[in-house]
Amino acid sequence: MRFNYPVIGNILGLLLMLNGAFMFICIPFSLYYSEGDFMAIALAGGITIAFGSMLSFLTRNPATKELKKKDGYLIVTGGWLIMSLFGMLPYLFSGAIPSVADAFFETVSGYSTTGASILTDIESVHKGILFWRSLTQWIGGMGIIVLAVAILPILGIGGMQLFVAEAPGISPDKLQPRIKETAKRLWFIYLGLTFVETMLLWLGGMGFYDAINHGLTTMATGGFSTKNDSIAHFSSPFIQYVIIVFMFLAGTNFTVSYFVLKADLKKVLNNEELRYYGGILLGLTVVIGGMLLLLDVGMPVEETIRTSLFQVVSVITTTGYITTDYTQWASFITVLFFIMMFLGASAGSTAGGVKLVRHIILIKNSFLELKRQLHPSAIIPVRFNGQAVSRDITFNILAFIMIYISIFALGSLVMAMLGVDFMTAIGSTATCLGNIGPGIGSVGPVDNFAHIPEAGKVFLAILMLIGRLELFTVLMILTPYFWRKY
Amino acid sequence: MRFNYPVIGNILGLLLMLNGAFMFICIPFSLYYSEGDFMAIALAGGITIAFGSMLSFLTRNPATKELKKKDGYLIVTGGWLIMSLFGMLPYLFSGAIPSVADAFFETVSGYSTTGASILTDIESVHKGILFWRSLTQWIGGMGIIVLAVAILPILGIGGMQLFVAEAPGISPDKLQPRIKETAKRLWFIYLGLTFVETMLLWLGGMGFYDAINHGLTTMATGGFSTKNDSIAHFSSPFIQYVIIVFMFLAGTNFTVSYFVLKADLKKVLNNEELRYYGGILLGLTVVIGGMLLLLDVGMPVEETIRTSLFQVVSVITTTGYITTDYTQWASFITVLFFIMMFLGASAGSTAGGVKLVRHIILIKNSFLELKRQLHPSAIIPVRFNGQAVSRDITFNILAFIMIYISIFALGSLVMAMLGVDFMTAIGSTATCLGNIGPGIGSVGPVDNFAHIPEAGKVFLAILMLIGRLELFTVLMILTPYFWRKY
Repeated sequence: MRFNYPVIGNILGLLLMLNGAFMFICIPFSLYYSEGDFMAIALAGGITIAFGSMLSFLTRNPATKELKKKDGYLIVTGGWLIMSLFGMLPYLFSGAIPSVADAFFETVSGYSTTGASILTDIESVHKGILFWRSLTQWIGGMGIIVLAVAILPILGIGGMQLFVAEAPGISPDKLQPRIKETAKRLWFIYLGLTFVETMLLWLGGMGFYDAINHGLTTMATGGFSTKNDSIAHFSSPFIQYVIIVFMFLAGTNFTVSYFVLKADLKKVLNNEELRYYGGILLGLTVVIGGMLLLLDVGMPVEETIRTSLFQVVSVITTTGYITTDYTQWASFITVLFFIMMFLGASAGSTAGGVKLVRHIILIKNSFLELKRQLHPSAIIPVRFNGQAVSRDITFNILAFIMIYISIFALGSLVMAMLGVDFMTAIGSTATCLGNIGPGIGSVGPVDNFAHIPEAGKVFLAILMLIGRLELFTVLMILTPYFWRKY
Repeated sequence: MRFNYPVIGNILGLLLMLNGAFMFICIPFSLYYSEGDFMAIALAGGITIAFGSMLSFLTRNPATKELKKKDGYLIVTGGWLIMSLFGMLPYLFSGAIPSVADAFFETVSGYSTTGASILTDIESVHKGILFWRSLTQWIGGMGIIVLAVAILPILGIGGMQLFVAEAPGISPDKLQPRIKETAKRLWFIYLGLTFVETMLLWLGGMGFYDAINHGLTTMATGGFSTKNDSIAHFSSPFIQYVIIVFMFLAGTNFTVSYFVLKADLKKVLNNEELRYYGGILLGLTVVIGGMLLLLDVGMPVEETIRTSLFQVVSVITTTGYITTDYTQWASFITVLFFIMMFLGASAGSTAGGVKLVRHIILIKNSFLELKRQLHPSAIIPVRFNGQAVSRDITFNILAFIMIYISIFALGSLVMAMLGVDFMTAIGSTATCLGNIGPGIGSVGPVDNFAHIPEAGKVFLAILMLIGRLELFTVLMILTPYFWRKY
């Protein structure tokens, strides 16, 4: 047999059962607010668990438990897809989102931690459903952590083996037990940070319901809010600073956070990506804040700096929370935010997009290519974290970015063909592929995706998945190589 | 001595003398139309020749005639720069373009065969000056031919050693005499095609003056026209088809044209880039023509197809002639044309931009990277023209495109910072870096660059040079490696 379908099916079944269990977590909120979404959620949860159990039961006796590399691709892409299909049920059953295309968009936007929304009036949605919406992002974030630190390095995708090589317990030889150990440790950090943020937001004056929702979607770098005007609704500087700090943490390599907890400061300070991450956030805030002060947009100095910092961190970490419509400031700032959509935060975090480490290696490599031109016979490798990066990995990263840009170009073309204007076409494609949330044009910070044609919504949702799963995982399955016997 | 400054100076001096001599070629037109630009041109020519002679005289006795690779970079970048500085003189002396920033923009747009213009009323410019404007493009085209087939392959830039490896007389060992021989042969083709096109346009009903001007700027893939509304002025289908054919030829690898002349059809048919070049032009014409027929823009079928073909060939070959404002048709077509600005035609032609061959190798490599992922230990090279492309060259091409995109992103940012809107910022940067001419936004097909701030004009002119000289040639000089002793 080419693929180990029984074990793949078994894992997908388990994922579905977990997904159904998560739906039941929404029920207390349903009951407390009693807006009538209880039955829809219970039914969705029941169906999802039933289907998952059935799938697991049918595949309970695999001939062999051994999984090959190719099985990994099917599990990852299949897992995200099947979660998204069943994740739509609460929206559809409750009638909160009656259209399948809309529900698919919103659900994939959740699991892919994108945060783009088709809801025009978020606050009118029942609290149980809205909690489910936030939860899909948090579940997606959990998935990303295990994907980034345990699965992608084994598949050898986009240099991930390099960036998280220092993850606690990673070793390519003995896999199975270590994956569980690593994932558990990092999930603990993820859960802990979500809890701390929720408490801080609650203390800062946010209601408990809003606090937990924003806790869930911040740590996933998701960006779904319970309010129509996102974080702009909470004008308290304390709340905004708390969210800035936790967006920053969510965009930090979780293995780095693990070493912080273990007080292994040497490993933290030696992390080159972390330094660039901090530097870029700071640099961009200074540039944009400075520009705003020059333009004199009528905000006090502290608010100008806070707003700039908030929006820079929000876009770089691909969270997508909004405190203001930054596309109204100046075309320079719009161009800058558009470019920021292609950066991304740290590898091994819940952030989407290209990831800074890839840019660091590419920029270094480009400079070195000029040097190589002058000394054609010399071997001049790129260095990262003090070590030479192999040519294979650099090559893979270059190919990753080329494919990313090609998908962006073709995606923009498809969106324009579906009838949206130029800015909306490139904005929606860039923001969905990068898992950010708000774009430019008619899908800008204060807009939503409701007016996009149905085909466009499904297409953008697919882009979210492709981007979230680091391109190769999804694209691989579409190649003939994948389905060949050898 | 680190660089062979005397020989470099001597070559630049000779180039200037040649440039001055070309200015004198404009004098017959000046005299014939006697609009009063004779003195300005004669003075400019005289000064240029005088300065060139002085430079050549001062450097007539070099210690050694040997040139190293590094000298090559200085000659190429220095040559284009010094030509541009002296090429401004006819505009400045005649008062046709009084501002230095404007004159610099127009001159660099000429020598770089870009074709972007700051002139708001081209037809009011005196005929001698206008002929000089067309001639700068033709001179630029001559420079590009020798650059592409003789200099870049030796410098090893962007895989050029590969694409023109079949150029008649190229051999990396014995350089000096072969460069001259190769350049002469291809210049002969260039001159011949210019002559034939001029005759055909004249026969087709264009006035002789317009015919020769368009002949010069077509073969250079430059795109300067003598008319305010470019080729739209000449509604004759015959004229438009002639220009389409010669734009196509100008965007074809000149070594391929050489083999056509030698009736060596095997080498022509084996040329992979040529097949893709034809296929892409045809495919894009079908897509855009089909779209226009669907949209029913009110043109007869033949005109729809001709217009589509004309604009596709014009943008892909980076010529930039206009027969209609294609940005008014549909946002899909605008996005498509914008993407086309990043393609470029064949390497070894006078076309600018990235060049198709680089895309072909990149796309092949991206697919193969997916295959490599599944078979990490296999060595899977990219194949081009039936031969394996070395990893060094593929690497170099990947770096080329990454640098191209980085310059595009940073350039757009700079332009936006200078105050132009989003579309104009990305449009002007893409079109100038790609040496096309018209952009999108307020520098679209029927607009000009007059309203761009002065700093923006100088900046865009620098982008034209960087793009025209295949990035590395200019950027190399800005690196510390270049100026180091070893």
